Amino acid sequence: MRQSQLFTKTRKEAPKDEVAKNAQLLIRAGYIHKEMAGVYAYLPLGLRTLNKIVGIIREEMNAIGGQEIFMSSLQRKELWEVTDRWDDAKVDNWFKTNLNATAEADGKRGKELGLGFTHEEPITNMLEQFVSSYKDLPFSVYQFQTKFRNELRAKSGIMRAREFLMKDLYSFSKDDASHEDFYEKAKQAYIKIFERVGLGEQTYVTYASGGSFSEFSHEFQTITDAGEDTIYLCPDCRLAINKEIIEKQSVCVGCGGKELDEHTAVEVGNIFSLGTRFSEALNLMYVDEHNKKKPAVMGSYGIGPGRVMGTIVEVLADEKGLVWPKSIAPFAVHLVSLGNVGETASQLYQSLLDGNVEVLFDDRDASAGVKLADSELLGMPTRVVISPKTLERQSVEVTDRATGETELVPLTGLMARL
Amino acid sequence: MRQSQLFTKTRKEAPKDEVAKNAQLLIRAGYIHKEMAGVYAYLPLGLRTLNKIVGIIREEMNAIGGQEIFMSSLQRKELWEVTDRWDDAKVDNWFKTNLNATAEADGKRGKELGLGFTHEEPITNMLEQFVSSYKDLPFSVYQFQTKFRNELRAKSGIMRAREFLMKDLYSFSKDDASHEDFYEKAKQAYIKIFERVGLGEQTYVTYASGGSFSEFSHEFQTITDAGEDTIYLCPDCRLAINKEIIEKQSVCVGCGGKELDEHTAVEVGNIFSLGTRFSEALNLMYVDEHNKKKPAVMGSYGIGPGRVMGTIVEVLADEKGLVWPKSIAPFAVHLVSLGNVGETASQLYQSLLDGNVEVLFDDRDASAGVKLADSELLGMPTRVVISPKTLERQSVEVTDRATGETELVPLTGLMARL
Repeated sequence: MRQSQLFTKTRKEAPKDEVAKNAQLLIRAGYIHKEMAGVYAYLPLGLRTLNKIVGIIREEMNAIGGQEIFMSSLQRKELWEVTDRWDDAKVDNWFKTNLNATAEADGKRGKELGLGFTHEEPITNMLEQFVSSYKDLPFSVYQFQTKFRNELRAKSGIMRAREFLMKDLYSFSKDDASHEDFYEKAKQAYIKIFERVGLGEQTYVTYASGGSFSEFSHEFQTITDAGEDTIYLCPDCRLAINKEIIEKQSVCVGCGGKELDEHTAVEVGNIFSLGTRFSEALNLMYVDEHNKKKPAVMGSYGIGPGRVMGTIVEVLADEKGLVWPKSIAPFAVHLVSLGNVGETASQLYQSLLDGNVEVLFDDRDASAGVKLADSELLGMPTRVVISPKTLERQSVEVTDRATGETELVPLTGLMARL
Repeated sequence: MRQSQLFTKTRKEAPKDEVAKNAQLLIRAGYIHKEMAGVYAYLPLGLRTLNKIVGIIREEMNAIGGQEIFMSSLQRKELWEVTDRWDDAKVDNWFKTNLNATAEADGKRGKELGLGFTHEEPITNMLEQFVSSYKDLPFSVYQFQTKFRNELRAKSGIMRAREFLMKDLYSFSKDDASHEDFYEKAKQAYIKIFERVGLGEQTYVTYASGGSFSEFSHEFQTITDAGEDTIYLCPDCRLAINKEIIEKQSVCVGCGGKELDEHTAVEVGNIFSLGTRFSEALNLMYVDEHNKKKPAVMGSYGIGPGRVMGTIVEVLADEKGLVWPKSIAPFAVHLVSLGNVGETASQLYQSLLDGNVEVLFDDRDASAGVKLADSELLGMPTRVVISPKTLERQSVEVTDRATGETELVPLTGLMARL
């Protein structure tokens, strides 16, 4: 894409009320726009990155057999009363609304609806019609959907928003063994996802409380000062334990090690065995091999692509701006023309497009200082500068955004280098 | 995909409270689930079709230079008060909610928010930071986003939902000439979209009232008894006129023809010149070539992919079930194995996958009657039956879902035939 066509512009300052580093940088770079506290719009560059994260998650969910669906945000009060999750005293972050609030006519004025903060209830309820026999199990469904959470505080940018995209997968199995089998597959898929988006090194499978149906659940915690959690890392087995667990047992859950390192971290994903809590309450039953009626065993598995994106900014960005791993960068290459090289630069841009390179072309009529500073703020993995000086040597200057390493590359060898 | 793995099942009857043909068939075929009146979930087959419609629209919006973004559903009351669209007496289909409804702590209890029914206000407001000069214009932005409309009645299935996906594009130009230029491009893009999704023949560019800033706007109306509108068709110039216009002037807007045919139709898209209504109210100004401050000239362009999907069902489905055009079918081919042909059928399935054919493989252990009836209900464009009888002749039976035409095709020639 030609940058002169892009409607967004960089800015020197983030809004004064924005305290999170991720949102400050993303706003300055024109990736997102702050609509209000905890509510952000994704602009072209930001949406490209968000969609690449979504694409990676989708591939890994499909690889473990997940079937993609799309539920609704509007939720029936009745369903959530069954599991005792409607009352604001029990769940304090509901956004609620009213059906036909303004229509006096049909007697439905004031009927309360919720805006989904999660989807166990409607999904379990919906599946009742499709599950009757053990032969229908196991399977899993997932969606990418907007969740609404009426958070008291929203000071972490896109890492904790009041309206945000979430991938939530739900698994349904006939018994614990079958459930554990899928749960382990999902755990491996999550590990792959965080590796693929560039957070593998900083992200730890973390033991957390399991609720009534299993000893542990697992969080995926990424170490960053911007996190709101504390985890305890075992240097011996590379496992982590969250605060709740460590308060009960002060040793490593994996190896019993006693020397644990305390870190601040953000929960970028979690997987949880739900047991039969929802299937019993909402009647998701099947008939087993011996003609006995049983509730399905469930699990839930969440990742917020926006939170992942914000975390990547917190972990990888530097004082000059954003730094994207190639797998999720809006564009792989930022081609920057300096000085009077219009025609040659355009030809190079076209040849990169022809070679299927995802390239943002800064063809703007601006100073070298502005263009290079913007390029660092925008953070594409590879910058290619073309200028009269580089052309003297039939070359371009290729810079790695993460390391800052620069080399002159002959025009003829650029495609191979990229 | 193997149908034995698909968690959805067909059903004989739609829910009793569902009166729309599109929703009845889509529910029976397991494409959608009714969450409540006017609110539907999309299941794997339905989501595949919805996403194909989205993909076609996205391609055509990109082709006219649209830049994709993603705004928020939660909306600030203040923005909508500026244009006098907050008051329920002015806009009666708002869903509204409250920030921190349950949080007593921060004094914000009860602060009202809206759930976007459209996005002119927040988009215009956001763009103020990016537009300053005539050099920044023209451009256009679009999104695929969930809209919430608190409709009094919701009896048309996914053709009129209370929560639904919408593609809304907004254009920004420096003057009327530049605006008209884009408006015409968008009109042509819309014509292409309806052709590509299979509604070209039944869909008419329809003259509608233009509001304060232009004589006409344009609706795209598809002729179907399931529609809620009446249009008047000119057989001479293939234009249509909506009821509002025809009440003012009873002749064809295009050629002055007086013999117009009355039809029931559904509005599947619309394009509208907004003039400077929103840019003046929300201060989207630019400085022109003569250093004069002027408001941007805007247009808005909407299509609801779910409504398009419902309309296609209304127009193309028959008494046996759904009938999808190939461009938007969940799968191009429905491979159905009858009788004891498991191994050969699996090999054929694999060879179709290897040939990049999108294929749903009915490998279920069910009767021929059930499998063939399900295949007609699901509506893939091409059905391939493999059975001991067809294999006697080293062939499969290929049936076109729309025409019912059937022929025996040798296994060796199937890929070429598809």
